[in-house]
This record gives sequence, structure tokens and C-alpha cells, in this order.
Amino acid sequence: MKTKRPVIALLTDFGLEDHYVGTMKGVILSMAPHVSIVDISHAVAPQNITQGAFLLWSSYRFFPKGTILVCVVDPGVGGKRPVLCVETKQHIFLAPDNGLLQFVLGEVKVRRSVAVTNKRLFLPEVSSSFHGRDIFAPVAARLATGTSIEQLGPRTAPLTVPMTFRTIDFRREEKVRGRVVHIDRFGNIVTDLRAAAPHDERPRRNIQLILQSRRKGKKSSAVVREFHATYMNAREGKPFIMIGSTGLLEIALKNGSAAGHLEVGLGSPVVARITHAGR
Amino acid sequence: MKTKRPVIALLTDFGLEDHYVGTMKGVILSMAPHVSIVDISHAVAPQNITQGAFLLWSSYRFFPKGTILVCVVDPGVGGKRPVLCVETKQHIFLAPDNGLLQFVLGEVKVRRSVAVTNKRLFLPEVSSSFHGRDIFAPVAARLATGTSIEQLGPRTAPLTVPMTFRTIDFRREEKVRGRVVHIDRFGNIVTDLRAAAPHDERPRRNIQLILQSRRKGKKSSAVVREFHATYMNAREGKPFIMIGSTGLLEIALKNGSAAGHLEVGLGSPVVARITHAGR
Amino acid sequence: MKTKRPVIALLTDFGLEDHYVGTMKGVILSMAPHVSIVDISHAVAPQNITQGAFLLWSSYRFFPKGTILVCVVDPGVGGKRPVLCVETKQHIFLAPDNGLLQFVLGEVKVRRSVAVTNKRLFLPEVSSSFHGRDIFAPVAARLATGTSIEQLGPRTAPLTVPMTFRTIDFRREEKVRGRVVHIDRFGNIVTDLRAAAPHDERPRRNIQLILQSRRKGKKSSAVVREFHATYMNAREGKPFIMIGSTGLLEIALKNGSAAGHLEVGLGSPVVARITHAGR
Repeated sequence: MKTKRPVIALLTDFGLEDHYVGTMKGVILSMAPHVSIVDISHAVAPQNITQGAFLLWSSYRFFPKGTILVCVVDPGVGGKRPVLCVETKQHIFLAPDNGLLQFVLGEVKVRRSVAVTNKRLFLPEVSSSFHGRDIFAPVAARLATGTSIEQLGPRTAPLTVPMTFRTIDFRREEKVRGRVVHIDRFGNIVTDLRAAAPHDERPRRNIQLILQSRRKGKKSSAVVREFHATYMNAREGKPFIMIGSTGLLEIALKNGSAAGHLEVGLGSPVVARITHAGR
Repeated sequence: MKTKRPVIALLTDFGLEDHYVGTMKGVILSMAPHVSIVDISHAVAPQNITQGAFLLWSSYRFFPKGTILVCVVDPGVGGKRPVLCVETKQHIFLAPDNGLLQFVLGEVKVRRSVAVTNKRLFLPEVSSSFHGRDIFAPVAARLATGTSIEQLGPRTAPLTVPMTFRTIDFRREEKVRGRVVHIDRFGNIVTDLRAAAPHDERPRRNIQLILQSRRKGKKSSAVVREFHATYMNAREGKPFIMIGSTGLLEIALKNGSAAGHLEVGLGSPVVARITHAGR
Repeated sequence: MKTKRPVIALLTDFGLEDHYVGTMKGVILSMAPHVSIVDISHAVAPQNITQGAFLLWSSYRFFPKGTILVCVVDPGVGGKRPVLCVETKQHIFLAPDNGLLQFVLGEVKVRRSVAVTNKRLFLPEVSSSFHGRDIFAPVAARLATGTSIEQLGPRTAPLTVPMTFRTIDFRREEKVRGRVVHIDRFGNIVTDLRAAAPHDERPRRNIQLILQSRRKGKKSSAVVREFHATYMNAREGKPFIMIGSTGLLEIALKNGSAAGHLEVGLGSPVVARITHAGR
């Protein structure tokens, strides 16, 4: 899987305020000067594994074959949680085995999977709080320079339970429960509910999304009923349902923030109701 | 215009919180592994075309010959607004034809300009909300690997009206109206008024900038009269006029935020008054 | 020190909202298309030299031999402060001579040090407010393409006073004064106090850190007594002392922000007290 100019993609909750990400890149380039390093995001909410898992899943398939995806959202740093390396046909994933890979594992076929235990591949001194620098960066650099994943440690099955997104079939009357997995910069509320037939236009007027809102400080339910395929058809000031760019149901607000408008936060429960009768 | 290691420069309002920019880079590197990708900024205020146009104009001329500048601030995504590709002697610009290129078109000579319509160059599935990933990234990658702009679509003249910055001539008594096009991280208020003779020192004491301020919550006019060539000569606590690094008039505050101090926002009107009599 | 693909690492207080960092990269790639550019951080608090010096010190040693580290936190831009270029066995540093290199100079051996005065290496027009673009970027690019540091200007000794971190010896009863040099994205409070023997486990229960806190709006002293080697052993809701990834004492809060909890800010004084008697 060695290519001429391998890509290492980084996803962390380290932010860009500190030197953490830059230091990881310094370590990587010290060992693998020829790689291209790409940031997926470093703004995962601190220690929010679900959000990290969602962002990784949203982007991984767009990276070139052979890309090493390094994911560090790691509340257990310094403890005994295993570090995992998973190889698929297309990619290599390096992450703590804490759920970060849940959505990826839900849809890829794992070729090989090992526990990263070979200390000779780490920095000589491993701190108790910055494994991104001391373990993940040097191991990624080794993988980019030809170290095989067998050399990282023993074969192991991931502890992480693979997750797939709940699917909504617009053709059936049903009620599906999900939750908010991400709020994007535009204030779009991204749910973990996926449209079974994203290009099926007919039944969309029959969907409702019910969210737990804290509108005007009070806990209440917000019901969003409008569905639009694009922003163009939506009205300002009126939140609407759309199928986002990753195929998941989102609530958006034209020229505004749906999350701000509805006061909905990360992790909030969502219920989707499909009714075929007129409302 | 193909170089050994072409540069693709990105300017968007996508922010760095989400996976959007990283995903675009994944797409680009999948098709053009040899390019250097540079971020101009991803912090354009959501859908603020004028600010995006200003940031692009501020930086484009510093990029190497052959750079492909990809600009996505796109309130009309999913609608019918055309995507434009403009070639100049130095650069290639790829942007929705919505005004984003207004300041660039005000000063460059367009060699060729096409509507980007050739779907074979897009990702196989084009979403309704993320053309950065599905159209802009793959088309930029194609351009970087030798696809000619003629292959992108038919020749077209930009709909965008070229804009030039209003120029202030310190030698003449005059009143010029402009507006605030950007507030930078230091709180400097950047106007769209340009000094005709930036190195002419004499008449600068005779300029006033009048801004619509919301100081202490009340709408009022703030008048800034002091002019300094550098921060060094300015006094703390006293906003002053300077000629910014792009040649535009700015209001700055030594060791502070002029925008915070004067409570001036993006888009605010500005009047410059040049008087030659004593005040 | 010329390598095949030299690294230029950037540390500034320019933020990522503006075009500033992107423009610097455009200038660098125009002159040195083969370099790898890495961001250490651009989120140094505006003009906060101490924080910039800390972030640089935290990361520089992880960059490859030959890396050119370009540091621009520069309240004196436009004035007469000298720009410095310092060469060590491993790296080249380019920075205003205003204290930014204080912690680096406290531990490296300087090989050569020059004042950067050779205007032929700058951009043709040097603005009064953006030396990052007009001086630092082109000079770094020249260094990356083989210009020797002798060509930058005359030999000079840095004005910056080298600083070393105060060291705490857990084996001695003592009281050491320091200050808060950084608050990281997780809210960890980083002090300039260093553990003499970071791997000595015994005496750690006898350390107290006393900070000036503004808890609940009132100025008071916060005393932190607990010490843990990792987050795993700490209790939620209870700030604790740990040795951070750079060897400095930090105050952390499991799954929370110590700085928010204690309302401690950048620059706050800290006193460390080591007592060997039981408390």
C-alpha cells in the first residue's frame, strides 16, 4: 500500500490554538519527509467520541487509496485503553479503540486489525498525556515509510462495536429514534438518521422530525415538517429538513443557524415520523 | 500553465470545525497527489460574498504563477447559479459567479472565462449542498493535472460586475463614501477606500473617517481624525487611520481592537472627508 | 543544512480568520515551491510574546533537522526592532528580537546569529504593518533555497534575554514562584515550573500549587493539592496537578476545564510549595 507520496490525514480534538497539531506534524515529517499531511478537523468537541466518529465517517471515503487516517479523541489517554490499527482495502486507520471507528467499522471490510503495542516504534519517551505526539504520529510515519501493520503489534479484534446509521424508508409509515451527532458551522443539525432512498422525491412531504429543544430557555419539543431538496426552495426563518451531503437527515435554516434557532445541542434525541395520511 | 508542483489555494466560508475542508483536500489529493494545497481562509462569515471577495483580492497576487484559486462562498448552492472558471496571465480562478470575484475582476485582464458545466469532471454523485467537494475540488484537481479550461464548459462572460476600490486623493478636498469590508483578527476595521498615493506623507493630517458606530449600544457617528503611518507612533486607547498592508484605509487601535472600541460591524458605511483648511 | 524537501514551520498571532497566513504561504511557495509548510499555531493571543515563546519552545525540538521556524508575534512591527535569524545545530529561527525566542535561547547552543537587514531579500515593497508577508516569508523562502544566513545581514548577539524554566526539586522543601504561561484548549493551566525529576514518583503528594484565582468574580487564592500522573486516576470535578507533555507543571481537570473552574488567566502568578511533613 506504499505510494510515492502517501497521505496522512489527522482528526483530533486538539484544536488549533495550541502547538499540539503542529508538533505532531513535526514528528511525522522528521520520520517521513515525503508525506502529505491533511487536516480533517481538530475541532471535535473535547473528548466527544461520537462527534469524532461522525466526522471521520463523513470524510474518510474521499481520501486516496493508501491514506493513513490518524484519529485522536482519547479521554483514556495515559490509561490502559488499546490503540488500534485497522487496515481495509482502501485505507489504514489508527485510533484508540474507544468507539472512534464505530461508523467506519459499520461499513468497511476489515482486512487486518492489530493492537499497537510495539514500543520501538514510539518516541523514546512516552508522556502520559500526549500520545498524539509520542505514539500516533511516529507510528503513522512508520506506516508511511513501509512498516507493515504486522510489525505494530499482535492481531486483535476491535472492542469497538460497529455502528450503522438508522435508516428511514419513506415508503413505510414508521417512527425512528435517533440523535444529533453533529452541529456544523452553519448551524445545521445533523442526525444519525439516513434516508434509504435519497433520490426518491415523492414521499418527503410526509416526514416530521421531532427534537428536544430548549427554545427560549424552556425545554420543549420542536417539530420540523418542511422538507426541501435544496436551500433555494426554502423560506428564510423557517427550519426545514434536507438530506445532507453525507446522506444523513439534517435540519437547516436558510441564511441562518437551525441549531441556534431551535436551541438544539449535540447528543439531543430526535424522532422521525413518517405518515402517509394527510396532516 | 502546468508546473511541476502546482498550488491549489482554497478560500471558503466552511470553517475548520467540520470535515468539509479536509474532505475537499481528500478529493483533490485523490486525483492530483502532487499538488500543494494552501488555505487562504475558511473563516469568511457564512455566505458573506463581499468579505470573501475582499480576502481573495488581498492575497491572490502573492500566489505563484499557475496557482488555481478555488473560492466557495455560495449561498446559491443547489440552485442554478453558474460556476465560473477565469484564467488570467498568472492564475486560474474557480468560483460561483455571484460576486466573489468582483475585486479581482476589477484589476486583472481575463484571458478566458468559461461556465463549468462538464459533469464528467465532477464526482459521480453531486449533492445539493456540498459542491465544494463534488464540483470545485475535482475540477480544480483536473486543472492541476492538465485539463484545459476549454474542457470545463462553454466560453462565457462573467455575470459578476467588476469592482474597483474607491480611491481617495489626499491632494483634493473631497468626500468619498465607502463601507467596511472586513474586520481582522486584531479588530482592525478595513474599508474599501484606497489611498491614491500611499507614500505621500504630507496631507494626511487632513483626513477624517466618519463611521456609523453603535458605541455603548447607541447608534451614533464615530469620527476618527488621527493618522499614523505605523503603530509605533500611535497612542493607546485612541483609534487612528492607517494605510493597511493591502493599500486600503484601515482604522486601528494600538494594543486593542478598533472594531470592539467603536462597535463597528461588517458592511457599515464609512465617509472619508479630506479638508485642506485647518480644523 | 539544505535538504531535499525543507520544512518551514510558522508560529504567529495572525489567527486563521484573515488571509494573512495564506498570503505568507503564497509568498513562500512563489519562491520555494518544494518546501513543506507546517503551522505550529496562529492563535497566540494578539501580541502575547510570552505565550508565543512558550508554544515555540514546546514544539521546536520535534521538527526535522534543517527546519526553518518562522515566528511572528510582533507588537513593534513598523518600528525599529531588529529581526533576528538564529542558527543552531538543528534549526534556523527567524523572529523579531523581542523575547519570542527567550525559552529556546535558554536551552540551545547558538551557532550563528544575524540581524536580518538585507533588503534585497524582502518583497520589493515593505508595508508598515505586515512584515510576515514582506520580510519573514521571503527571507524564509530564501533560506530554504540555499541562501546562507550570512547573506541576511551582519552578525549580532540577540537582545532577547535567554530564559530557563524554574525547576522544582521534589526532594527539597521549598517555595518557588512562577506564572501561568499558557491555557490550552482543554483548559489546562500550564505554568513555567518544571519538575526536576519527572519520573520520580515518591514525593509528589507533598506539592501544593497556589494560584491567584478570580473564582465567582472574587479575587482569592486557589490551592491545588492533588497530584496524579495521568487523567485516569483523577476524580471529576477536582482540579489536580500533573506533569504536562512538555515537562512543565500543569493543573488539569478530568473531563473539564481547570482554567474555567478556577477562573485563572494567562500571566497569573503561581506559587509551588513543597513540604515533606504530613499536611
